[in-house]
Amino acid sequence: MQRTIFTDDHHAFRDVVRQFIAKEIVPNLPDWEAAGCIPRDFYTKTAALGINGLQVPEQYGGGGIDSFLFNTVVYEEIGYAAASLGGFQVHLNTVLPYFLEYANEEQRDRWFPGFADGALVSAIAMTEPGIGSDLAGVTTTAVRDGDDYVLNGNKTFITGGINADLVIVVARTSKDPENRRNGLSLLVVESGMPGFTRGRNLHKIGMKSSDTAELTFDNVRVPAANLLGEEGAAFKMLAHNLPQERLSIAITAQATATAAVDLAIAYAKERMVFGKPLAGFQNTKFVLAECATELQAGQALIDQALIALDAGTLTPADAAKVKLFCTEVQARVIDKCLQVHGGYGYMTEYPIARLYADARVTRIFGGTSEVMKSVISKSMGL
Amino acid sequence: MQRTIFTDDHHAFRDVVRQFIAKEIVPNLPDWEAAGCIPRDFYTKTAALGINGLQVPEQYGGGGIDSFLFNTVVYEEIGYAAASLGGFQVHLNTVLPYFLEYANEEQRDRWFPGFADGALVSAIAMTEPGIGSDLAGVTTTAVRDGDDYVLNGNKTFITGGINADLVIVVARTSKDPENRRNGLSLLVVESGMPGFTRGRNLHKIGMKSSDTAELTFDNVRVPAANLLGEEGAAFKMLAHNLPQERLSIAITAQATATAAVDLAIAYAKERMVFGKPLAGFQNTKFVLAECATELQAGQALIDQALIALDAGTLTPADAAKVKLFCTEVQARVIDKCLQVHGGYGYMTEYPIARLYADARVTRIFGGTSEVMKSVISKSMGL
Amino acid sequence: MQRTIFTDDHHAFRDVVRQFIAKEIVPNLPDWEAAGCIPRDFYTKTAALGINGLQVPEQYGGGGIDSFLFNTVVYEEIGYAAASLGGFQVHLNTVLPYFLEYANEEQRDRWFPGFADGALVSAIAMTEPGIGSDLAGVTTTAVRDGDDYVLNGNKTFITGGINADLVIVVARTSKDPENRRNGLSLLVVESGMPGFTRGRNLHKIGMKSSDTAELTFDNVRVPAANLLGEEGAAFKMLAHNLPQERLSIAITAQATATAAVDLAIAYAKERMVFGKPLAGFQNTKFVLAECATELQAGQALIDQALIALDAGTLTPADAAKVKLFCTEVQARVIDKCLQVHGGYGYMTEYPIARLYADARVTRIFGGTSEVMKSVISKSMGL
Amino acid sequence: MQRTIFTDDHHAFRDVVRQFIAKEIVPNLPDWEAAGCIPRDFYTKTAALGINGLQVPEQYGGGGIDSFLFNTVVYEEIGYAAASLGGFQVHLNTVLPYFLEYANEEQRDRWFPGFADGALVSAIAMTEPGIGSDLAGVTTTAVRDGDDYVLNGNKTFITGGINADLVIVVARTSKDPENRRNGLSLLVVESGMPGFTRGRNLHKIGMKSSDTAELTFDNVRVPAANLLGEEGAAFKMLAHNLPQERLSIAITAQATATAAVDLAIAYAKERMVFGKPLAGFQNTKFVLAECATELQAGQALIDQALIALDAGTLTPADAAKVKLFCTEVQARVIDKCLQVHGGYGYMTEYPIARLYADARVTRIFGGTSEVMKSVISKSMGL
Repeated sequence: MQRTIFTDDHHAFRDVVRQFIAKEIVPNLPDWEAAGCIPRDFYTKTAALGINGLQVPEQYGGGGIDSFLFNTVVYEEIGYAAASLGGFQVHLNTVLPYFLEYANEEQRDRWFPGFADGALVSAIAMTEPGIGSDLAGVTTTAVRDGDDYVLNGNKTFITGGINADLVIVVARTSKDPENRRNGLSLLVVESGMPGFTRGRNLHKIGMKSSDTAELTFDNVRVPAANLLGEEGAAFKMLAHNLPQERLSIAITAQATATAAVDLAIAYAKERMVFGKPLAGFQNTKFVLAECATELQAGQALIDQALIALDAGTLTPADAAKVKLFCTEVQARVIDKCLQVHGGYGYMTEYPIARLYADARVTRIFGGTSEVMKSVISKSMGL
Repeated sequence: MQRTIFTDDHHAFRDVVRQFIAKEIVPNLPDWEAAGCIPRDFYTKTAALGINGLQVPEQYGGGGIDSFLFNTVVYEEIGYAAASLGGFQVHLNTVLPYFLEYANEEQRDRWFPGFADGALVSAIAMTEPGIGSDLAGVTTTAVRDGDDYVLNGNKTFITGGINADLVIVVARTSKDPENRRNGLSLLVVESGMPGFTRGRNLHKIGMKSSDTAELTFDNVRVPAANLLGEEGAAFKMLAHNLPQERLSIAITAQATATAAVDLAIAYAKERMVFGKPLAGFQNTKFVLAECATELQAGQALIDQALIALDAGTLTPADAAKVKLFCTEVQARVIDKCLQVHGGYGYMTEYPIARLYADARVTRIFGGTSEVMKSVISKSMGL
Repeated sequence: MQRTIFTDDHHAFRDVVRQFIAKEIVPNLPDWEAAGCIPRDFYTKTAALGINGLQVPEQYGGGGIDSFLFNTVVYEEIGYAAASLGGFQVHLNTVLPYFLEYANEEQRDRWFPGFADGALVSAIAMTEPGIGSDLAGVTTTAVRDGDDYVLNGNKTFITGGINADLVIVVARTSKDPENRRNGLSLLVVESGMPGFTRGRNLHKIGMKSSDTAELTFDNVRVPAANLLGEEGAAFKMLAHNLPQERLSIAITAQATATAAVDLAIAYAKERMVFGKPLAGFQNTKFVLAECATELQAGQALIDQALIALDAGTLTPADAAKVKLFCTEVQARVIDKCLQVHGGYGYMTEYPIARLYADARVTRIFGGTSEVMKSVISKSMGL
Repeated sequence: MQRTIFTDDHHAFRDVVRQFIAKEIVPNLPDWEAAGCIPRDFYTKTAALGINGLQVPEQYGGGGIDSFLFNTVVYEEIGYAAASLGGFQVHLNTVLPYFLEYANEEQRDRWFPGFADGALVSAIAMTEPGIGSDLAGVTTTAVRDGDDYVLNGNKTFITGGINADLVIVVARTSKDPENRRNGLSLLVVESGMPGFTRGRNLHKIGMKSSDTAELTFDNVRVPAANLLGEEGAAFKMLAHNLPQERLSIAITAQATATAAVDLAIAYAKERMVFGKPLAGFQNTKFVLAECATELQAGQALIDQALIALDAGTLTPADAAKVKLFCTEVQARVIDKCLQVHGGYGYMTEYPIARLYADARVTRIFGGTSEVMKSVISKSMGL
C-alpha cells in the first residue's frame, strides 16, 4: 500500500539523502566499523545538507521545521542502506531535542549554531554501572558550589560518548531521600572540562560504527550556566522526549528490516540450489511473504504514529507499542533473512550479517521490551 | 492512537448498530448456536436499519453508498460483541458484491429490492468435495439447453447454504480442456428449483450460528436469465471481489480479538488468585500488553487498507497481507486471552470460548494463510 | 528412534488394548460426544481387560502392578485413536491413586473390588466457583458431628462428576485462619447421599464425551469412615500424586499430537491441490517435519520421566516441565495439522477437529502452563 | 531428571576436562578471539589429556574407545564454559572420523600418531563459492596424472582452514555428466604442497576463535597415496558420518544454551531493578522456566540419540531431528537469556554476548534447518 504521509518536498529531500548515503556512508562503513566510530567530519557533511539542524530555529542557521517527517526520511534512508549510525542518531534524535525544548536564550545562542553547522556533537549520560533504566537509582552527584556544580560519578553505555563535545549528564542535585526522582538535574558537561575523562570504547555484538563509552566525572566543575532546564526537573524532562525517541528506534528497526528483505530477495533469486534458484522454493517464498506481511503492519503503525507525533497526540503507551512491535518484527525478519543467506549470512562482509548483529540491541535500548510492556499494560488499567 | 478514518456519520451509525446488536444478537446468540443458524427475520430487522442495502442503489430501496466504511462499522460491532455471524456476513460481504457488480438491468429489478428489504438471502457455492480453493478443478457442469442451463454437481462447505434463497453456483459451461479456467460461469439457483436439494448442516468446531451446507444439483434447469455476468468469465469475476472479501475477514478477526482482550482484562481484574487479582501478576500484564500491541498494528493496517479499498487501489497482495496478518494475530490473541480465563475459558457459556472456537476457521476460509503467502510472494517477484 | 522402555509384555498388552479401542471406542465416540458422557458399561468392559485394576492389589481382583507403564500403554492407545476420555482417565489416573495410597484397610475392602471390576467410578472435587487452583481458598466446609462430617459447599468443573459413584471432596475441616492449608481434608461422598446433588453437565469447547459437573453439598452427612487419609492432611496428599497426574496429561497430549500428524500425513498424501498431492509441497513437508521433530523431543522427555516415575525419583519440577512442554507442543502440532486439512479440519466429523477442540484444555487442567512455570522456576532458585 | 548415560569413568574424565578448560580455555578465549584462531599448542595440550586420540586405535597412541560418550563430555564441558571452539571440534568430530573410517593401513601409520599426540590438525573442504550444501555442484577437479592427482579449484568457509596441516578436499575425479554424485573423491592435501594457498581468515558474526578460510588449489599435485577411501565414493563417505556430526552440533548447542541459562540466573539474582532483584519478577521467572523446560527436552533427546549412536542405530532422520530441535532451542534460549542481561548482554565482555554471536551459525552449518526438514520429511514418506 502506498504511504500517504509524505509530500513532494519529502520525496525530493529523500533523493538527496539517498545519494549522499550511497556516496558517503556505504563505502566507508567497513572502515568506520573497524575504527569503532564515525569520523567527526561526517557531522559537518550532513550539516551541509541541512540534516543536523532540521529542527533548529532558522535564526541559528537551522531549518526551523516543526515536523518529524524530514528526520524520518533521514533515518529510513540510513536503515535502507543497511547501516546503523547509533551515535549520529542519538545526537540528532535523542539529545538535540532536550536542547531544543529546554535550552534558555543564552544557551541557544551559545550552542544552536554548532548543532546546525555540525561543529557540535552531543551525547547523554544516564546509565550507571549497576542501575540500568532505573533513574531513581542514579548515584552521580552534582553539588552546588558558588557559580558551579561539582560533579562526581561514573556513567556507562554512553552512545557517542567518545565523540561528544557536549554531554548531558543526569546527576543528583538533591539528597532528599523522600523524593528520589525530583532530585535529578541535567548538566551539560563540555569536552576538556578538568576531571572529565572518557574510558574504553566498549566492544559490542554489533553497532560497531557507534562508539559506546564509559565516562568518569571526578570533581568536574560545571558552570551553573550549563544547567539545562530547571534544577530537579530531570525526570520529567527525560520522560517528555521518550515517545519520539522510541518512535525513531522503531523507524530504524523497520527500515533495516526492510533492507534485510530486499537483500534476501536479491540473494534468493541469484543463488542456485539443486539446480534452481533458492527463490523458487516454496519455503523461501513463504518465509519472505511472512516478513513482508509483518513489515507492512509495522509501516502502517509507524505512519499512524508519525501523524500523531506531529499532531502532539502520541502517548507514551502508543510509542511503547510501536517500539515493541517494530523491534520484535525486526528481530524475526532479520533472523529469517539471514537464514535465507545460509553460510554467507554469517560473514560480516555481507550486509545481512551486520544488520543481524546491529539489531540485537533495539529490543534493549530506549527501554527494553519488558519496560515497553509495563508502560503498555499500565495504560490498559492493569 | 485515535483512528482517523471515520466521520461523525459513521459514529452515529455505529451507536445505532451497537444498540441493535446488544438487544437483538447478544441475548439470542446461544439459541441461534443451538439451532445452527440465524432466523430469517433477523435479516428483515437488519434491513430495517439499512444495513443490508448499504451499497444497493437508492432506486431499489438501498443506501447507494459508495464506501465500505459503513459495512466496516457493522462487522466491527458484531465482532466487538464477541459474535461471528458467518452466513450473514457472507451474504452481505461476499455474495451481494457479485450482484452489485455483475447483475444486468433485468436482474437488478428482480433482486435488488429483496436485498435491500431483507426478503432475499444469498450464498455462493464454489467448493466441491475434494477440490478446495482450486477453481480449475470444478466438476459441476451447466449445459445449455434452449433457454436453460441444466446443472449437475455437488457443492460443500456452503456458508449460509441452508438459509439462502439465491445461490450463486460456480459451474463449468465449457469442456475445453485447454482452458479450464475460462470454462466457468456463475448461475443463480433459486430456492425451490426442481432438483436443487440441501444436505446436512455440517457440524463445525465453532461458528455454530452459521449454517454450512452440502448442496446437490440434479438436472436443475436454471433459466439463462439467471446467468450472472458473462458466460465463461467466472474466474475473473470471482477474483475481482477477493480483496474486499479478505479485508472484511480481517476486520472481523481484528474486532473479535479486540473483544477477547476486553473480556480478559475484565476477568483478570475481578478474578482473585492467591489473594490478589490476576491482573496484578506481571505475566498477565505482559501477555495482555503483547495482545494490545499486535492489535494496534492490525488496526493501523486495516485502516490503511480501508482507505485504499475506497480509493480503488487495494491490490490482491495488500489484501492478502492484511488477512494473513490479522487472522494470525487473532489466533494468538484469542488463545492468550482464553488462557487468562483458566478453566472458565473452556466453557462455552463464556464468550471467550466461543471466540476461540469461531476463530480457528479464519486462517482457512477466504483463502488459507498458505494461499495468502503464495499471493504475497508472487507480488514480491518470487 | 526406538523407544526402549517397553518389554514384550507391554507390547502384547498394547495389541489387546488397541483392538479393544478400535472396536469399542472409535465407532461409538460420536454418540458419546452427543450424549456428553461415556456409558457406564464401558467401565465394565475395560475392567474385564484388566485396565481399571492394573495397580489394585491382587487380593482385591486387581493386577497388583507396581509400574505406570501399563497405564501408559492404555493412555497412549486412546490418544493414538484420536480420542480423549477425560472422565475415564481422571478416574483411573487422578482419583484411584489417592485410594491406593491413602485408603485404610476397611476402605480397601469396601471399594477396591469395585475399582477392579468396573463397578465403581470415581471423581475428585477440588475447584470451587471463583478459586481455581488455589486450594488455600477452599470454602467448602466439613464439620464433625458425632460419627459424621456435615458437608456444605459448591464445586465446579468436576470431570466425571455426573457419572461418579464416589467423589473425593476437598473440604475445610479446620477454621484456623493461621494455617489455611492444613485445615483441608478429603472426604469420600457416595452417590445417593442425601443433600448431594449434581448440576448441569457443562458445555465445553471439546472433550465432549467427558462429563463436567457442578456439584452441590447441602448438609450432606458423610460418615467419618469415609475420611480418606488423615484429617487436615489433604494439601500434602493432593500434592503427592501431582507428578504422576501431570505426566499422564503429557502422555495423552503426546499421543493425540502423534495421531494428528498421522492424520495430516494421510490427508496430505491423498488430497490433490493444483494437480499434485498436498504432500508434495515444500511447506507441507516442512510443517510436518517440524511437528515430528517436536514430538520426538516430547517422547524422549516422557520416556525419561516414566523411568523416573517408576524409580520414585520424578520431582514435581520435572513433571511440570514434561507437562508444560508436551501440552505446548500438542497445541502447536495439532493446530498445524488442522491447517493441513484446510476447511475439512474445521468439520467435527474429521478427527483432527475433535483433537483440536479437545487439546485446548490440556494447557489448563492439572495446573495451567503458568502454574507449571511457577513450579519450575521455584526449583531453579528463582 | 538425572541423566543415566554416563558411568563413573565419564564423570572422572569430566572433572579433568572441566579443570583443564577453566585453566586453559576460559582465561585465554578473549585473546584467541582477537587473534581469530586457537594457538597450535592448544592441540598438544588437549592431546596430552587424551582428548584428541579418544577414538584412535591404541597401537597409534590413542584411546581406542568405541563410544562417543567421552567426546560428548568434552564438547559439553566446552559449551558449559560458554566457549565454541569451532575449528577444534571440526578437527575432532567432523574430520577425524573420515580418517578413522576410511584410511588404509599406510595412511593410518602415517597420520594416526599425529592425530593422537596433537601434532596434526585437520580440516575438510567441501563448500565452494556459490554451491553451498549441494555436492552435486562441486567444480574443483582432480585429474589423475601418473601417481598424482592434479587438483584445481577454490573452496570457501573452511573451518580450521588456516590452522590445518591436512585438508580433506572434495574434488571431482570423473566428468561423467550422467552421474554427478559418483564422480567425487576425497583427497588429503598437506600443508606446504605447491599451489595450495590459504586466503583470508573470514570475518564472522561470532565463532571468532575459529578460523574460517578460503583455500585455493592451483595445479596442486596430490599423490594418489593421499586418496582417502575409494575413488568416486566421496558422496557415500560424506553421508556416512553426518549423523554423528549433526548430533555433536546439537550437543554443543545444548551445552551452550545450558550455560546461558546459568549465566542469566546468576545475573538475575544479583541485578537490582526498582529495588528488587530481577529474579524476583514473574516475567524473569517464567522466561527462565521456559528455557529450562526446552533444555530438559533437548537433553532427553540427545541422550536417547547418544545411546542410538553407540548402538549403531542412529538414522540420518533421527540425527536431523536432534540437530534441528537443539539448535532452534539454542537460538530461542540464548536470545531470551541475553534479554535478561539488558544492555550488558550486548557487550562482548559478557559471555552471554559471545554465546549469542556464536549461536547464529548452528542453524546453518552441518546442514541448515531447512535441509534438516527435508531429510526428516523424506523419512516420513513425504
